[in-house]
Amino acid sequence: MSEATPERRSYFAAAAAFASGTDSPRQFLERCIAEITARDGDVKAFVATNFAAARLAADAATERWAAGAQISPIDGMPVGVKDIMETADMPTEQGSALFKDWHGGRDCAAVAALRDAGAIILGKTVTTEFAASAPNKTHNPWDLSRTPGGSSSGSAAAVGCGMLPGATASQVIGSTIRPASYCGAYGYKPSVGGINRGGSFDGFSQSCTGMIAASLPECWVMTREITARVGGDAGYVGVTGPMTMPAAKKPGKVAMLYTAGWDAASDSAKAEWQRARQTLVNAGIVVVDRDSDAAVAAVEAAIAGAMDLAMSINAWEGRWPLNSYRRDRDPSLLSDSAKNTLLQAEAMDQDVFAALLGQRDQVRRIYADLKSEVEMCVTLAAPRAAPTGLEWTGDPSFTVATSLIGMPSVSLPVLQDDGLPLGLQMIGFSNEDAALFAYAGGLEPLFHDA
Amino acid sequence: MSEATPERRSYFAAAAAFASGTDSPRQFLERCIAEITARDGDVKAFVATNFAAARLAADAATERWAAGAQISPIDGMPVGVKDIMETADMPTEQGSALFKDWHGGRDCAAVAALRDAGAIILGKTVTTEFAASAPNKTHNPWDLSRTPGGSSSGSAAAVGCGMLPGATASQVIGSTIRPASYCGAYGYKPSVGGINRGGSFDGFSQSCTGMIAASLPECWVMTREITARVGGDAGYVGVTGPMTMPAAKKPGKVAMLYTAGWDAASDSAKAEWQRARQTLVNAGIVVVDRDSDAAVAAVEAAIAGAMDLAMSINAWEGRWPLNSYRRDRDPSLLSDSAKNTLLQAEAMDQDVFAALLGQRDQVRRIYADLKSEVEMCVTLAAPRAAPTGLEWTGDPSFTVATSLIGMPSVSLPVLQDDGLPLGLQMIGFSNEDAALFAYAGGLEPLFHDA
Repeated sequence: MSEATPERRSYFAAAAAFASGTDSPRQFLERCIAEITARDGDVKAFVATNFAAARLAADAATERWAAGAQISPIDGMPVGVKDIMETADMPTEQGSALFKDWHGGRDCAAVAALRDAGAIILGKTVTTEFAASAPNKTHNPWDLSRTPGGSSSGSAAAVGCGMLPGATASQVIGSTIRPASYCGAYGYKPSVGGINRGGSFDGFSQSCTGMIAASLPECWVMTREITARVGGDAGYVGVTGPMTMPAAKKPGKVAMLYTAGWDAASDSAKAEWQRARQTLVNAGIVVVDRDSDAAVAAVEAAIAGAMDLAMSINAWEGRWPLNSYRRDRDPSLLSDSAKNTLLQAEAMDQDVFAALLGQRDQVRRIYADLKSEVEMCVTLAAPRAAPTGLEWTGDPSFTVATSLIGMPSVSLPVLQDDGLPLGLQMIGFSNEDAALFAYAGGLEPLFHDA
Repeated sequence: MSEATPERRSYFAAAAAFASGTDSPRQFLERCIAEITARDGDVKAFVATNFAAARLAADAATERWAAGAQISPIDGMPVGVKDIMETADMPTEQGSALFKDWHGGRDCAAVAALRDAGAIILGKTVTTEFAASAPNKTHNPWDLSRTPGGSSSGSAAAVGCGMLPGATASQVIGSTIRPASYCGAYGYKPSVGGINRGGSFDGFSQSCTGMIAASLPECWVMTREITARVGGDAGYVGVTGPMTMPAAKKPGKVAMLYTAGWDAASDSAKAEWQRARQTLVNAGIVVVDRDSDAAVAAVEAAIAGAMDLAMSINAWEGRWPLNSYRRDRDPSLLSDSAKNTLLQAEAMDQDVFAALLGQRDQVRRIYADLKSEVEMCVTLAAPRAAPTGLEWTGDPSFTVATSLIGMPSVSLPVLQDDGLPLGLQMIGFSNEDAALFAYAGGLEPLFHDA
C-alpha cells in the first residue's frame, strides 16, 4: 500500500455524508488509521499516536453529526500536531533526543482550541530538531528516497498521503510552505502573530503557527476555529474573517516574483512558473514582474538578501534556549547545526540585532508599498520537487522572503516537477489573510481546468 | 532576628572589599544564608533554595574577584528567581498546586544570562498563582501581619530584608513596583519587551520581566548583564545603554501624576506625594500636573480607566493556558480568581480584543506626547503602605497605568506611610530606560538629604 500514489483525504468532502449516516467521523477516522497502519512504517510521519482516545472522540462526534449538532465544521476531524506544540495527552519531543518523553501535561493554545471545536488530536507529527534544519526520520510519501521537507516534515507527509486531512505546522524560514509543496498538500502560513503560539516551542519574532491540509477551505477553517477561540499571539488579534472559506474572487492584477529561488529552480520548475503566469494571463489577469513594474523590482531587490537576514535574526533569537541546553543538558545530543547557530549568535550583540531589525522593517515597508499596485504576489513554493535523500530538507529560497516580511502565504499543489508535486505559492498582505484565501480560491480552478 | 528592622543588603557596596580579601562573595553569600535561616521561617519568601550549589559557585567567584578576574559586577551576586521563571536546577511551580514539583530542566533566558555573568541562583521566590492575584504564603518582613504585595511577593520580601541583594520579578499590572514599595526595596519594570522572557511563564503583551534589588545600580546592572547576553523579547532589541549605572542627571521638568490611585491614597501617602513634589521644586525642578499642563491632563484622563482596560486585555490573553488547566488538570486546584478570569475571557471575542488593543494604542500615543513636555513623570508606587492580611496583595492603581502604556518605571524606597516603606515611582519613556535611571539617580539624593 505504501507504493500507491498518495492521495489527499478531505474531511470536508466526506462531511457531506455525515448527516445521512452513509459516512461518519468514526468511519473517516478508521480510514485515516488504516492509512497510517499501512503506510507509516515506511513514511514515519508520526512520533506518537493516540488511537484509543481518537476513537472515543470520533464516536462522540459521530453522534453530534447525526443529530445535526456538530460543534463546528471540524468537529470529528482527525488532526496531527507538529511535535513542537504541547498536547496534554502526548509527549512533546521537539525532534530532539534532549526532549525524549518530555511531557508538559497541557495543551498548547491551538490544540486547546482545536479540541474545543471538536477536532480529534490523532497524533504528534515529526519535526526537525527544534523546528530548525537538522532532519529526522520522515520520508516523502511520493518517493521514500526523498525528503518530505522540513521542519513540518511529518505534518506534510501525513496530509500528503491521506493519513490525515489536516495538521498543524510552523514556519520561520520555509517550514510550512516547502514541505507542503514537496508532499502535495495545501499549506498556509498566516500573517505574523496570526495564530496564538502559546505552548508551542516557537519563540521567533517572524515565526508563525501554520496549517497543512487536504484543501484550502480546511486550512482556513482550522485556522479560524482556533483564532476565534484563542486569537493570535499576545498583543495580536490574530487571523480574522469569515468562519467559512472566503468567497472566491479573481484578482485584477498580480505580481509574479522570481525571488532568490529562481537561480536554483529546475528547468521544469521554471517552465511551471511560466505556465502559471500564462494561465493567469489567459484568465484576463494583469501580470507584472520586476521587468515591467518598478515597485516589484524594488521588492525583488529588497528580498534578495532575505536568507542571510532571516538566518541572522533567528540565530540571535534562538541563542536561548540553546545556551541552556548546551550547559544544562547533554550537549552531545545537540546537532551540529544547532551548535553552529549558537556560536553564530554568540558572535552577535544587541547593536547587530538592532541593525538587522532595521533592515527587516525596511524590507517590510517596501513590500507593503506593493499593495497599491497589485492584489497579491505569485511564485513557486520551492525551486524543484523534493530532493533525494533525507539528510537535507531542501532549499527554502522561495519561502524565506515571505517569512521575513511576515505576510500570509499559501501553497497550492497544482504544479509538478519530475512527476512529483510542486506548490504554487500565493502571497498576500499583512493581516489580510482572508483576502488571500479569496484570491487563492478564485485562482485555483484555473489550474485544475488547465 | 525576624523582629529586627529589615535592612537591604547591597552586593555592590560589599564588592569594594572583595579585591582586598577583607570580604568575599562566599562571605557575602553566608550572610544571605544566615538571614534566610533566621528570618525565612516567618517571612516565607522562598519556594526552594540551593545552598550547596550556591556555595560552590561563590567559592569560584571568590577566586575570580581575588584575582581581579570577575566576569562582571554581578559575578558572585546571590540572586533570587521568581517562581514563574525556569531554572535548570530547581522546580518551577508558578505558585500553583497544579505545578507542584514541575521541572522543565532548563534555565529561562534571563537566568541563563545571569549565570553566564557569574550570578548565583540562590533560590526560587514565591509568586502568587500564575503571577496573578491569588496570594501565597509570603509575609511582609516589615510586619508579618501584612502582605508583601504581589505577584513578585517572595522577591520583594527577600530583598527588602537583606536575604538577597537582588531578585527577578515581573509586572503586568503592578507586580514589581507594588511589592518593591511594600517591602522597602528598589523595583524596576522595563519598557515592554525590555528583557527576554523566554522560559518565563509570562506571555502577556504588556508584561515584562523586572528587577527588585537593594539599589538602583543593582537593578540596572542585573538588567544589562542579562540583555547584553540574551536581549529583549523576540523581535525587541531589549534594554540598552551603559553597562554600569547611567550617570546621574537632574531633570529640568517633571510631571507629577495623581493617577487613579489618588482617591485610594492614605492621608499620609498624600502628604508624602506633596513632600516629594516640594522636594523637586526646592531643587529647582519645574513641576507640572494636570491642573497646570494640558498634556498632563490628557494623560490623566487617558489612564483613568487603565485598570479595566488592562484587566480585560490580560483576561483574553490569559484564556490559554487556563482553559487547558481546567480541562486537562485538576480544576479544583485553580483559584476562584483564575476561574473567574477564564469566564471573563470566554465572554470575549476577537472583535472585543481588537477594540481593547485600539484603546491601549491610543493611551500609549497620548502618553508619548508628554515627551515633548517633560523628562519624566513622578508619582507614588502605591496608595499606602502594605495592607494588613495576606489574603489581598494590595491596590495596584498607581502602577497599572505604567503597565498599560508599556513605559519603564522604577520605585525608590524613600517615602513612608504608617512607619512602613512607601515607594516613590518614576516613569520614563519607551526604550529610554537608561535615561530614566539617569534621572532617578539624579533625584534620589534629594530624598536622602531631605
